[in-house]
Amino acid sequence: MTAYAPPTPARRSPVRLDTDPYLSRYADRVTGLAASEIRALFSVAERPEIVSFAGGMPDLSVMDLDAVADLTASIIRDQGTVALQYGGGQGRPQMREALVDLMAYAGVPATADELVVTVGGQQALELIAKCFIDPGDVVIAEGPTYVGAVAAMNSHQADVRHVPMDGDGMRMDLLEDTLAQLAREGRRAKYVYTIPNHQNPGGVSLSEARRVRLAELAVEHDLLVIEDDAYGLLGFDGEVATSLRTLIPDRVVYLGTMSKTFSPGVRSGWIAAPTPVREKLVLLREAADLCPSNLTQLMIERWLTTQPWQEQIKRYRALYQHKATLMLDALASEMPAEVDWTRPRGGFFVWLTVPTGIDTSALLAKAIGRRVAYVPGRGFYDDGNGGDQLRLCFSFPPTDRIREGVSRLAELLHDELGLLRSVYGDDAPELAGRRGGGAGA
Amino acid sequence: MTAYAPPTPARRSPVRLDTDPYLSRYADRVTGLAASEIRALFSVAERPEIVSFAGGMPDLSVMDLDAVADLTASIIRDQGTVALQYGGGQGRPQMREALVDLMAYAGVPATADELVVTVGGQQALELIAKCFIDPGDVVIAEGPTYVGAVAAMNSHQADVRHVPMDGDGMRMDLLEDTLAQLAREGRRAKYVYTIPNHQNPGGVSLSEARRVRLAELAVEHDLLVIEDDAYGLLGFDGEVATSLRTLIPDRVVYLGTMSKTFSPGVRSGWIAAPTPVREKLVLLREAADLCPSNLTQLMIERWLTTQPWQEQIKRYRALYQHKATLMLDALASEMPAEVDWTRPRGGFFVWLTVPTGIDTSALLAKAIGRRVAYVPGRGFYDDGNGGDQLRLCFSFPPTDRIREGVSRLAELLHDELGLLRSVYGDDAPELAGRRGGGAGA
Repeated sequence: MTAYAPPTPARRSPVRLDTDPYLSRYADRVTGLAASEIRALFSVAERPEIVSFAGGMPDLSVMDLDAVADLTASIIRDQGTVALQYGGGQGRPQMREALVDLMAYAGVPATADELVVTVGGQQALELIAKCFIDPGDVVIAEGPTYVGAVAAMNSHQADVRHVPMDGDGMRMDLLEDTLAQLAREGRRAKYVYTIPNHQNPGGVSLSEARRVRLAELAVEHDLLVIEDDAYGLLGFDGEVATSLRTLIPDRVVYLGTMSKTFSPGVRSGWIAAPTPVREKLVLLREAADLCPSNLTQLMIERWLTTQPWQEQIKRYRALYQHKATLMLDALASEMPAEVDWTRPRGGFFVWLTVPTGIDTSALLAKAIGRRVAYVPGRGFYDDGNGGDQLRLCFSFPPTDRIREGVSRLAELLHDELGLLRSVYGDDAPELAGRRGGGAGA
Repeated sequence: MTAYAPPTPARRSPVRLDTDPYLSRYADRVTGLAASEIRALFSVAERPEIVSFAGGMPDLSVMDLDAVADLTASIIRDQGTVALQYGGGQGRPQMREALVDLMAYAGVPATADELVVTVGGQQALELIAKCFIDPGDVVIAEGPTYVGAVAAMNSHQADVRHVPMDGDGMRMDLLEDTLAQLAREGRRAKYVYTIPNHQNPGGVSLSEARRVRLAELAVEHDLLVIEDDAYGLLGFDGEVATSLRTLIPDRVVYLGTMSKTFSPGVRSGWIAAPTPVREKLVLLREAADLCPSNLTQLMIERWLTTQPWQEQIKRYRALYQHKATLMLDALASEMPAEVDWTRPRGGFFVWLTVPTGIDTSALLAKAIGRRVAYVPGRGFYDDGNGGDQLRLCFSFPPTDRIREGVSRLAELLHDELGLLRSVYGDDAPELAGRRGGGAGA
C-alpha cells in the first residue's frame, strides 16, 4: 500500500523564522502553512500491524483488474498517439458524454458542454475556490467538512463559517442564523459548500425536506451552492437522493468524481456548472495544469461504455455496507457509553464524538501505540473545533480487522476515561455523554 | 487528433457586464479572464486540410506504443490495487528515484527527497506562482516566454517584467537594467523565470557565459531563479548545457517534465527545490489535487527502469532535427526578406518576427483561410508586445507538410507586404527589416 497522507495536517502554524531562509519570498497565503506532527504519525500508521481507519480510500479488491488492464492496453495500442498526447482543457467530448450518462444514473441532469473534467474532486474544489475566493471572503460549509475542501479554501485565505449537522445533515435553522449573522456584518458568503450525500466525514445525508429548504434559502438569499456529490451512488440501499442541481440548476456548481465508484488512480473528477462559470473554470484549469490526461479519460470512456460499471458500483455498495455493519456492531458492543457516533447509510465514514476531556489530536500517538489509527477531528474544521471528534473510515480496512481495530480504540478510550475519572471524579462535566451533539444520527 | 487549445488566448479582456450573472461573485483574479476569439480559430485549425504549426506537441509516431501498452497492462494486472489507488502528495519514492536518474542523464544533480511530482510542467508553474506571488508582485521573465507560465502568473495577478533575448538567450545587460529599475521603484522580483534550453517560444538557449553571469547576478541581487528545463534533453547535438541548479542550487527551483521526452498523456512533471520550498509545494499540491496518479507514475518508473528510454530520446532528437531543418530551409527559400526568425538547435519552436505593419493576431484568420496556422506572438508577453511576432512549431506537423505550410504562410506575408507597399511605398518604416531584433539567432 502506497503512502496516503490525507491533507488534514496541513494547517497554519507558527512561522518558523529560524529555519526557512525563503520566508520573505513566500506569498501571504503560504507563509504560515506547515506540515503538522500528525503527518509523521500517519506514515507510522501504514505498518501492517496497525489497523488504520485513517485514509478515506476505496477497497479495490473487488475491482476487475484484468478488465481494466485489457482495456487500457488496447487503448494504448489502438489510440496511443491520442492517449499519450495533450488534450483539450475542458476534457474530451466523449469523456464528458460518458459522464453525463453516469450523472443520469445518479438522477442528476447535465449536458456535456456544462462539464469540465478535473484531477479528481480535489482539483474541482481548488478551481472553485480560486474562481470565487478573494482573501478574507466568507464561505459557508458544514462543520465538520471535507479536509481537502478546507485545505483548498484555506490556500485562498477564505473565512470559513461552519454550520453544524445532525442526523439529517446541515441544520437549516443554523444556516439561517449564519446568514443573519453575515447580514449583520454587512457581508455575504461567496458560496455554501455542502456534501449532501453520505458526508465526509460526518457519515450523514441531507434530508429531502432540507434539500428543498436549502434551495429556498439559496433563492431567498441569492446564494451559490457547491454540491459535492462524491458519495451519491454509494448509498447502501442503492437509492439516490434529489440533487440540489435538480432543484436550483442556475445556483449550483456540481462536483463528481470517479475516485469512489471506479478508481482514484485515474485522478478524474468533474464539475458541472452554469456556462459563464464553466468558461472561467476551463481557463483556470488550463493555467493550473493545461489539460486532463487523455489516457485516463479514454480508460473511463471505455469503462463507462463497454464494461458493467453499474455492477461494479453494486459490488462496492455491498462491500461497504458489510464493512459499515461490522464497524457499527463493534462500536455498539465495545465503546464506552460516553462516546457517540453517526450511523452511515452509505459512503466511507463514521464520525465519533468523545467526552470533551479527551483531545483526539493528542490521543493519536497513543492510538498508534495501540496499533489503531484514525483522523483527529480538528482538520475537518477551520475554526479550531473538533478536538473531541474523530473520523473512522470503514471502506478500506480489511473486513477481518475492523472489529480488532475498534476494540483497540475502545480499550484506549476506556482507559482514558478511567484516567479522567481518577482525576475529576464521576461527575466531571468532561465526562458528560455527547449523544445528540455534533453530527449525531 | 484531439483538440489542443494552447492557453495563449486566455487573456484579460473587457468585463462583459451584460452577459454574466455570476460576475459579482468572482474573485478579483478571474473577473477579467475570458477566452479570446483566437481560441475559436484554433479549433478550426484542426481540420486536416490545414497545416498547423500552432500546438507545441511532441510527435508520438516514433514511440513504441506496444511496449507502453504491455508495461501498462502488466502494472494494472500485477500492482493494480496500488496503481488505481490514492498515493502520497509528493509522489512515489520510486518515481522520484527514477527522475533523479533522468536528471543525472541531463547533468542536473538532485536527491529524491528534493522532488515533488506534478501534473506536467504546467502544474509546477502554477504551484510556484501560488507559493510566491501576492497580487501585484513582480516576476521577471524572458520576453517572449511560455504562454502557460504567463497564464499561471496572471492567474495570481503578477506584475511580469520581460527581459528581451538574442541568439544567446536572455540578455544579462537588460536583466541588470530591469533589476536597477526595480531598485529605483523600491521593489524586488519574487523570482526570475527562465527556460534556458531551447526556449519556448524563442527557440534559443542561454549561453554558458550568461549562465555564469545569471548565477552571479542571483547572488548579488539575492534572486530566486525558476529554471524550466522542458527541452534540455532535446538538443539536436545531444549535448546538455550547464544547469543553473548546478551553479546556485540554493537559489534555483528546477522544473522538469516527461511531456517532451516520453508522453504528455501521462501528465507528469516535477519540481526540484530546496527543502523548505519543497515542503510548501507539497502542501499546495495536496490542496490543488491531493496526489499524482499512481498509475502514470508506475508507467514512468517502469519506462525509466526497464525500457531503452535514452534511445527514445535520441529518436525524438533526430526526428526534430530533421523537421527543424526542413522548416528552416523552407523559411530561407520562401520568406520575404523583411521577415526574421530564430535558428533553433533543439526543442520544438521557431520564432518569427515580421515587419511592424503586420499584426500577427489579426493575420491569423487570413492564415487559416490559406490553410496554415501558428500562434500569434502577443500571448507570449504579459505587456502587449509581440504583435509583430509569431511562433511556429516544427516538432508536431508531418514531415511531408512542413514546406507546404511554410510556403502558404510565406505567400500570405508576401501579399501583406505588397499591400503595405501599395499603401505606404517602399520606404515606410513599417517595412524595415527586423533582423537582429527580438530573439534573433
